[in-house]
Amino acid sequence: MSVRAGILVTGTEVLTGRVTDLNGPWVSTRLLALGVDVAHITVCGDRPADLMAQLRFLADQRLDLIVTTGGLGPTADDLTVATVAEFCGLELSVDTELEAHIAEIIRRWQRLPAGAAESGPTRAGIRKQALVPEGAQSIPPTGTAPGVAIAGSAERPAILVLPGPPRELQTMWADALQTAAVTAALSARTELRQETIRAYGLSEAELAESLRTAQHQISGFDGLEITTCLRHGEVEMVTRFAADHAPAYTELAELIRTGHSRQVFSTDGATIDDQVATALAGRRIATAESCTGGMIAARLTDRSGSSAYVVGGVVSYANEAKTGLLDVPAALIAEHGAVSEQVASAMAEGALRRLDADTAVSTTGVAGPGGGTDLKPVGMVCFGVAIAGRPTVTVTRRFPGDRAAVRALATTAAMHLIADGVAGTAAGERPAADSAPRT
Amino acid sequence: MSVRAGILVTGTEVLTGRVTDLNGPWVSTRLLALGVDVAHITVCGDRPADLMAQLRFLADQRLDLIVTTGGLGPTADDLTVATVAEFCGLELSVDTELEAHIAEIIRRWQRLPAGAAESGPTRAGIRKQALVPEGAQSIPPTGTAPGVAIAGSAERPAILVLPGPPRELQTMWADALQTAAVTAALSARTELRQETIRAYGLSEAELAESLRTAQHQISGFDGLEITTCLRHGEVEMVTRFAADHAPAYTELAELIRTGHSRQVFSTDGATIDDQVATALAGRRIATAESCTGGMIAARLTDRSGSSAYVVGGVVSYANEAKTGLLDVPAALIAEHGAVSEQVASAMAEGALRRLDADTAVSTTGVAGPGGGTDLKPVGMVCFGVAIAGRPTVTVTRRFPGDRAAVRALATTAAMHLIADGVAGTAAGERPAADSAPRT
Repeated sequence: MSVRAGILVTGTEVLTGRVTDLNGPWVSTRLLALGVDVAHITVCGDRPADLMAQLRFLADQRLDLIVTTGGLGPTADDLTVATVAEFCGLELSVDTELEAHIAEIIRRWQRLPAGAAESGPTRAGIRKQALVPEGAQSIPPTGTAPGVAIAGSAERPAILVLPGPPRELQTMWADALQTAAVTAALSARTELRQETIRAYGLSEAELAESLRTAQHQISGFDGLEITTCLRHGEVEMVTRFAADHAPAYTELAELIRTGHSRQVFSTDGATIDDQVATALAGRRIATAESCTGGMIAARLTDRSGSSAYVVGGVVSYANEAKTGLLDVPAALIAEHGAVSEQVASAMAEGALRRLDADTAVSTTGVAGPGGGTDLKPVGMVCFGVAIAGRPTVTVTRRFPGDRAAVRALATTAAMHLIADGVAGTAAGERPAADSAPRT
Repeated sequence: MSVRAGILVTGTEVLTGRVTDLNGPWVSTRLLALGVDVAHITVCGDRPADLMAQLRFLADQRLDLIVTTGGLGPTADDLTVATVAEFCGLELSVDTELEAHIAEIIRRWQRLPAGAAESGPTRAGIRKQALVPEGAQSIPPTGTAPGVAIAGSAERPAILVLPGPPRELQTMWADALQTAAVTAALSARTELRQETIRAYGLSEAELAESLRTAQHQISGFDGLEITTCLRHGEVEMVTRFAADHAPAYTELAELIRTGHSRQVFSTDGATIDDQVATALAGRRIATAESCTGGMIAARLTDRSGSSAYVVGGVVSYANEAKTGLLDVPAALIAEHGAVSEQVASAMAEGALRRLDADTAVSTTGVAGPGGGTDLKPVGMVCFGVAIAGRPTVTVTRRFPGDRAAVRALATTAAMHLIADGVAGTAAGERPAADSAPRT
C-alpha cells in the first residue's frame, strides 16, 4: 500500500494563467522522491467556496496527505488557513508568540523602529498571519507567513498548509516534513530510490526504442517506474524503484549508457551546469555573446562561487561592439557576415585575449523572428570555443522554435560545448540537438 | 449569471512535475478573454479512476463547460476519450471518414505508400484515435488526434476534449469554439473587460489599505473582481468587470493612481519591458553588469527588434574586466571597493564611451550567499545610469532573499532605472522595492 497525496494550489493569478505555478510541480517531485504517490493536483482562485469544494474532493480520494500552497498573506483575499480550519471544524486562535515573531521580521525588513509594526494596518495583517487552527502545529515562517500542519483523522487526510512564494515554500519544506502530522501521514511509505540519466542530442523516440528493448531483456523491468522528459535539447530519464529492483536498474543504466554513449553525459544526477562548474575549477572563462545576449554569462554566474572562474564577458549585439570590444576585424564581418563560424571564432579569441582568460565561448546567430535568409535561416547559430594553447573550435547548429526557444537551446548548447571543450573532447562531436520538438 | 468553466489537464508527466503544463494557463486566459469564469483546474495522471473522479468533481461544481487536454494519442495509456464517454454514458464508435483522414495524415508524415498505414499496429492506433462518442462532434485533427465536443445536458456540463501538444491544441481552438456544444455552453456569457495597473516599490499591504478605502468610497466596487500579485518588486493589480461597472473601475483606477503616484508606472497594460522598449526607440543602450552577470542584457535582447537600440554590454565580473573593458580606474576600486556608487558610475560611463552608446546602465553588488560585510551586506546593489549630456546618476538598494532573488530584483530595478532615466525623471526618485516578499 503506497501513501497517496494531493496538492491544492491556490491563487487567482495561477488559475487565470497570469503566473506559472512552480509549487505544484516542485512539491510533486519532492513527494515522489519520498516514495509518495501524487494522485491529484488542483488549482483554485481566491474564493472560499471553490477552495472548500476542492478540499472536499481531495479528502474523498483516499489520500493520506493534502498539501496546499498559497493564500497565507496578510490581505483579505488570502484565506487558506481560515478555509482549511473551517473544513476541519477547528477554531482559529492567535498564537501570540508567532505574532511577535512575524512583527519582528517585518520590523527588520522595513527597518522600522521597535514597536512600529505593532499598530495600524500592518498589525491587523500580522495578527491574521498568526492565526493557527486549534491543535495544529505552526511551522516557522521563512518569509512572513508561517506554515501549518494538521494531523489526519479517520475522516480526512493530514493537511499541510504552505506559503505561495516558491522560495519561502522550498525553504520551509524540511521543517514541514518534520512535523508530527506529516511524519505520521508518510509513515506507511516505501522508500524508493531515484536515479537520473541525462543525455544531450538524443531524441525521445530513440530512447523509447531502447526502453522497449530493455523491457524484453531485463527481468524486473516492470518494477522500474520510468519517466522521460525533453528540455532544451536534453533528455532526462528519471527512474524510481524499491531496493529489491536495484539490479534491474543497474542493467537498464548499463544498456542506456552503452547504447547511447555519445549522448549520455550524466548518470549520477549531475546537471550540465554542475559539470561545467567542476570543469572550470582553476580556469578563467570569458563569454562573447551575440544572439544569446548575455544568457550564457547569466547562467554561468547563477551559481554562487562562480566568481572563482568567471572573468566576465562581452555582449556584442551590434557589429561595432564585436569590432570595438572583441577586435573582430570589420573586414571579416563584411566578408563572411556577422553570423559565421569565422566571426564566432574571432569573437571567442577576442574574449580570451581581452579578458585575459584561458577559456572562452562565443555565439552569433539568427534568433528570429526576423533576419533569416535561405543560407542563414532563423535558428542558425555559430559557436566558437577558444582554449589557450589549442586551436579554436567552431560549430554551427540549427535550432527549432521561436526566439525564446532558439536562445535557450543555444545557451544550453554552449554549456555542453564548454564542458566538452575543457574536457578535451573535440567540441561538436556529439550530434546536434536540433531534432523535432517534443509532442 | 456568468458562465463557469473547469479545465482538466491529463498526463503523468505533468502530474509528476517533469513537464510544465502550458495548456491549463493557455485555455484559462482564452476562456477569461471570452468572459468565461474559470473556477477550477485539475491535473491527473494517466489513470482512468483518477480521471473519472476529477470529471465527477468538475461536473458537480455547477460548471457550463469542462475542457480536457491530453490523452488522445494512439497508445494504450492515452484514455481520455474512452473515460469521458464512459462518464457521459455514451457508446464509442469508429468514425470511418475520420479514420481515413488520420491514416492519410500519418501516411504523408511517414512518407508511406498509399494503403501502408492501414495495417498492423499503426492501424490499431488510428482506429483508436477515430473513436467518437455517439452524438458527439469531432474536431478535425491538427496533428493526428481529433478533438471531441459533447453537448451539455441537465446532468452535466458540455465537455470539450482537446489534444495535449500545445501547438495542436492552440491550432484547434478556433474550430473548437465553433462546435454546437461549445457555442451553446458559452451562449450565456457576459463580456468582461480586464484592466491592469502596475506599480513598483509599493507593498501589497499598502495596496490592500487603498483597496479597503476604495471599498468604502466607491459604489459598485463589489462588481469589480480584483486580484493582486507581487513579482520581483512589482505589484500587478488586475481587475475584471462587466460593462456596467466601468464607472466604478474608472474611480478605482483614479484612486490608486493618485494615492500611489510615485509607484504606479502603468495603467494601460504595458509592462516595464514594453516601456523600456518604447523609451529606447532611437537611442543606443549599453550595459555594464557585475552582480547581474548578463541578466539585464539578456532581458533587453529578449525582445525581437531590440537590435535597433541595444549596442551590447560588458559583464565585468572580475575587477580586471571592469578596468580592462570599462576603464574603471583600479585606484577607484581600491579606494571605494568594487561594490560602490563610484565604481557603478565609472562602469556606466565606461560602457557609454566604449560601446559608443547614449544610454548605459550598470550594476555592482553582493548577490550572495557569501561576500557580505556589515557595511556591504548580501543584497546590496549599486546602480549607475549614464545618459549622454547629463550627469550620471547612481543609486544603492538592498534586496531581500537569496542569490537568485537578489539578481532578479536587481535586474527589474535596472529596467525601472532605465525607463526613469530616459524619461528624464531623476533615477531613484521612486522608493526602493525592497519591501517584504509576497506571502
